[in-house]
Amino acid sequence: MPGWRTIGVIGGMGPAATADFLALLVAGVAAARDADHPRVLIDSNPHVPDRNAAALHGAASPGPALAAMAAGLAGQGAQVLAMPCNAAHGWAAAITAAPFVSMIDAAVAEAMALNPRAIGVLAVGATLALDLYGRSCPVPVLNGDLAMVQPAVNAIKAGDTGAAPRAALAAQAARLAAAGADVIIAACTEVPLVLGPGDVAVPLINSTAALARATLAAARLPDRVGA
Amino acid sequence: MPGWRTIGVIGGMGPAATADFLALLVAGVAAARDADHPRVLIDSNPHVPDRNAAALHGAASPGPALAAMAAGLAGQGAQVLAMPCNAAHGWAAAITAAPFVSMIDAAVAEAMALNPRAIGVLAVGATLALDLYGRSCPVPVLNGDLAMVQPAVNAIKAGDTGAAPRAALAAQAARLAAAGADVIIAACTEVPLVLGPGDVAVPLINSTAALARATLAAARLPDRVGA
Repeated sequence: MPGWRTIGVIGGMGPAATADFLALLVAGVAAARDADHPRVLIDSNPHVPDRNAAALHGAASPGPALAAMAAGLAGQGAQVLAMPCNAAHGWAAAITAAPFVSMIDAAVAEAMALNPRAIGVLAVGATLALDLYGRSCPVPVLNGDLAMVQPAVNAIKAGDTGAAPRAALAAQAARLAAAGADVIIAACTEVPLVLGPGDVAVPLINSTAALARATLAAARLPDRVGA
Repeated sequence: MPGWRTIGVIGGMGPAATADFLALLVAGVAAARDADHPRVLIDSNPHVPDRNAAALHGAASPGPALAAMAAGLAGQGAQVLAMPCNAAHGWAAAITAAPFVSMIDAAVAEAMALNPRAIGVLAVGATLALDLYGRSCPVPVLNGDLAMVQPAVNAIKAGDTGAAPRAALAAQAARLAAAGADVIIAACTEVPLVLGPGDVAVPLINSTAALARATLAAARLPDRVGA
């Protein structure tokens, strides 16, 4: 087994997405023994200033809190940082304490590997307002209807992972596919908590899972020759 | 909503159990908004010296590593500490950096609330060798057959959460119930990853879930009068 760099997770936005990300990190390590896993340090902090209020209404920036969390994690030994929250990537420039794996870049890379002509994005709040995916995608981006996606995300945040939010998000994905999107990115960490590949007619990229894969790739140390 | 103390998690033993514990913590908070959740700091460290080797073969103690992890979490702000690993509780005395919520005590308390005449325990390694449950239970403890429980736990640690380990653990639970246990404690964090209440004829206490409930109870700040 290769060794690993220590992973630091800037989390809590929201808490369920961070739990989902940790489960995906663990599942992504093909290891029979505990000791073959990477060390993972997590700061799940649900009190970071609201990303959407900052982007939409000029409220306090989350940047300083994210920078402090990154510094705290790096101080405890984190060598690779990841942040399972799309919207918070609007302030990713504040994270300088250790190498940072971008969730946006990870999801776009997985989408672009499918050679799409256009990419559909299911996102809310700051992710949409700051056009985080549009700025990173080399092909056109079609956004879901915020009036439909936002209530579904709110319901999931409140603990409803049932049929209603799934149906609302599936309908949006179908609309984007009909409009020409060859692949859909679940670009809000709540979305893949209910929406799976079986709910969408075109490939669905789970941005949380894409980040987990990219984070493990960045954390993995090369096998030593002869080791 | 009440406020919360910051929770610190001494984790990684194993990594999947820590991910399960975080998911249970998040699910245990009845909150509609991210900001109503507690902050949770996690050190998921799979490189702590092996608890079972220490208890069974006199190998290096995990105590100093656990003490260092606790100190690191407290240094980052953790005010209540929890450790989702039964076996590691053999060295719980090393954890002094902040108030510690015992998983053993949490599971025993939930079992004793059912007024059992005897408690069945599905455990392995140091949990058994150090008799962690027998020392804490005020009623007799019946232990599962290690020759049957250990292979199931090993399979789960290697990622097999299918029918085979579930059947093996269900058979052990049935044997303990037949021998007089009125309640079974899943006293290894891998066990509840496959064994649920529907698999056992008597009540089943999930030690990971019991710890999550006890941790949230310890972290919750009292509502302020008039707030």
